[in-house]
Amino acid sequence: MDAISVIRAKRDRGELTDPQIDWVIDAYTRGEVADEQMSALAMAILLNGMTAREISRWTDAMIRSGERMDFSSLGVPTADKHSTGGVGDKITLPLAPLVAACGAAVPQLSGRGLGHTGGTLDKLESIPGWRALLSNEEMLDVLHGCGAVICAAGDGLAPADKKLYALRDVTGTVEAIPLIASSIMSKKIAEGTGALVLDVKVGSGAFMKNLDDARELARTMVGLGRSAGVATVALLTDMSTPLGLTAGNALEVRESVEVLAGGGPADVVELTLALAREMLAAAGVHGKDPADALRDGSAMDHWRRMIAAQGGDPDAPLPVAREQHVVPAPATGVLTALDAYAVGVTAWRLGAGRARKEDPVQAGAGVELHAKPGDPVTAGQPLLTLHTDTPERFPYALEALDGAVTVAPAGTAFTPAPIVLDRIG
Amino acid sequence: MDAISVIRAKRDRGELTDPQIDWVIDAYTRGEVADEQMSALAMAILLNGMTAREISRWTDAMIRSGERMDFSSLGVPTADKHSTGGVGDKITLPLAPLVAACGAAVPQLSGRGLGHTGGTLDKLESIPGWRALLSNEEMLDVLHGCGAVICAAGDGLAPADKKLYALRDVTGTVEAIPLIASSIMSKKIAEGTGALVLDVKVGSGAFMKNLDDARELARTMVGLGRSAGVATVALLTDMSTPLGLTAGNALEVRESVEVLAGGGPADVVELTLALAREMLAAAGVHGKDPADALRDGSAMDHWRRMIAAQGGDPDAPLPVAREQHVVPAPATGVLTALDAYAVGVTAWRLGAGRARKEDPVQAGAGVELHAKPGDPVTAGQPLLTLHTDTPERFPYALEALDGAVTVAPAGTAFTPAPIVLDRIG
Repeated sequence: MDAISVIRAKRDRGELTDPQIDWVIDAYTRGEVADEQMSALAMAILLNGMTAREISRWTDAMIRSGERMDFSSLGVPTADKHSTGGVGDKITLPLAPLVAACGAAVPQLSGRGLGHTGGTLDKLESIPGWRALLSNEEMLDVLHGCGAVICAAGDGLAPADKKLYALRDVTGTVEAIPLIASSIMSKKIAEGTGALVLDVKVGSGAFMKNLDDARELARTMVGLGRSAGVATVALLTDMSTPLGLTAGNALEVRESVEVLAGGGPADVVELTLALAREMLAAAGVHGKDPADALRDGSAMDHWRRMIAAQGGDPDAPLPVAREQHVVPAPATGVLTALDAYAVGVTAWRLGAGRARKEDPVQAGAGVELHAKPGDPVTAGQPLLTLHTDTPERFPYALEALDGAVTVAPAGTAFTPAPIVLDRIG
Repeated sequence: MDAISVIRAKRDRGELTDPQIDWVIDAYTRGEVADEQMSALAMAILLNGMTAREISRWTDAMIRSGERMDFSSLGVPTADKHSTGGVGDKITLPLAPLVAACGAAVPQLSGRGLGHTGGTLDKLESIPGWRALLSNEEMLDVLHGCGAVICAAGDGLAPADKKLYALRDVTGTVEAIPLIASSIMSKKIAEGTGALVLDVKVGSGAFMKNLDDARELARTMVGLGRSAGVATVALLTDMSTPLGLTAGNALEVRESVEVLAGGGPADVVELTLALAREMLAAAGVHGKDPADALRDGSAMDHWRRMIAAQGGDPDAPLPVAREQHVVPAPATGVLTALDAYAVGVTAWRLGAGRARKEDPVQAGAGVELHAKPGDPVTAGQPLLTLHTDTPERFPYALEALDGAVTVAPAGTAFTPAPIVLDRIG
């Protein structure tokens, strides 16, 4: 077996055999297949595709490159959620303690933001004292004590994926459905969850810009999860405009706490409840209605215990950015579009995101929305408030908003897109 | 400008702009674009192609990555030949001194064998004392004194191509017409020849297995040469069976000397004369008929001077392999096929070629043919003689001959393919 023959097979539109896939993933993890060989193979996969069998074997080989976690000792069904990434997508924060409050355990391995999309760990790190890095034992302890844990994936989990993801990021080979699906699912299957709900975002602020691609990705991932014995469903959800009224780190934590307190923006509450119901159903837990757990304070109680168990102070004031800049509505009428990608890039440029993996983020930076598509607006009223510690970034951030806002004449009939567009499973 | 945006443009079937091409070649040469980025781009080029404009700019950028040679001080028209590589292709050896004897100067930069195809420098190095590595000044001196020089390309010539070729070799991205054409032509244009004849091989022993691909490659290269001001023509020639009666290093030198002495196999003489006439016509030199230069000893005279000027002893006995093994004809009748690729792999395995660039080759190893397609054969007569210093290689070498020989019943009508299949220019 050698790298060139595997690359050639895929280059010439062949189907890779099981031994070829097993060998190339293992040899790449060990460093025997070089980065320049794997990137050529990734480009051939992106352009020539993979069959369902190939994707399944590829995922399996990545899982076998590392350890598998096991939560069966908990004696409670486990459920996890994965979002393909969006703008203002803070759903994991209220969702994990909410599902825990309803009786399923939530072992949530999360990531950091890259580019215009935010990362759950970056958001939670704006809480003073909170720690993302836990040992496997600490993770199990928090999960046992609080019913939910949100932390970074350890180095032992799917190391082949870790290496391949970093390579794809710099070689223009991210946007391949077989590689996206196997990357996500290898980590989630290795993590050992019993049930998994996928939130596949569609729209300008998402990875998948159209419904057909999103549906193909969702179907591929649901198939992979089920054949690995994980009860998996996917919701396709709208990402043409930001979720909720904030995009940033501390800004999104504040909004999540509002949801846990029984308030918060309607779209965030709706999506949180929809995902919670899917997770509980997939885990086979039928006790409490998640809407009740938001009202009766039990979800908030789980949140406070989970944050405290990971070193955070749930009562500490959240960081606030040093400078604000208000963007007024350009006209009077009905707001019909507030582009998710543009808001994401604006928040990123304000300091909420990072250009390179090793960059720090600003806890207080981001964008606050004062209206959502469908709302009436008056020319000159505050539409957005931009937050940053580094005001010299304002002009660059404002550039990203060019063309992002559309206001139609007052009285124009306009119905915003529903949050949940489709369900696969 | 960044590598990912260039990779994405080609990945998404776009046409690269001049600044994108200039930047990516320059940045790759300087090490700013990483190998894993260039290999992803090479795979995207292989699968999505390039326009004539892109190939031309790519070639130009590779030329500008290094120095350009200039032979105008010679005061004599210059002509060079490039073969895309085959089995038993020793044509450069008699051709360069032959064309010099007819009045054009031949600055021939040659390469080494890799895989089943032989390399001109490896062949000449079987002559005791002969040196392939010359400084630019030495090269000019030999050319001035002998009318022809055959040597290795210096490190200063198209360094981008040198780096890219080594990368393509290990990443399954060799077989892309835009990349093959720009690789060959960047070196030949930078070399500074006034006229160029391309010998594009077609058949099992060649890189291009069918006439259509070979024609496309030839047309691409002829176009590149002409737009750079080099008088360029291409012959498409048969490589379904080895050229001449030998494949190896010293074995091919011996056969070349026979041709220079006025003898040698008919196909080698025919192709040598056809290429010599094309080179002289392209260089605008109309004095002597190359056939006369073979008969009157002037070509041999130029050969002896050229070999001696590069440290070689034209009278020294050539190395002979320590062991021989005779392969008999399997049946009586007419030999209708003797596969070039199989013979090439056999010679390679006997030690005439190398698996890695840094491996040494055996001077005496190779295959001798006792019949060519079209010849009558008798069962049991010697058909091939295998030569090696390492007889433990015989079984492995013989394996490569499986299915390589076809003998039809005596009296079967059979006309071998012509040597020259087509002419582009």
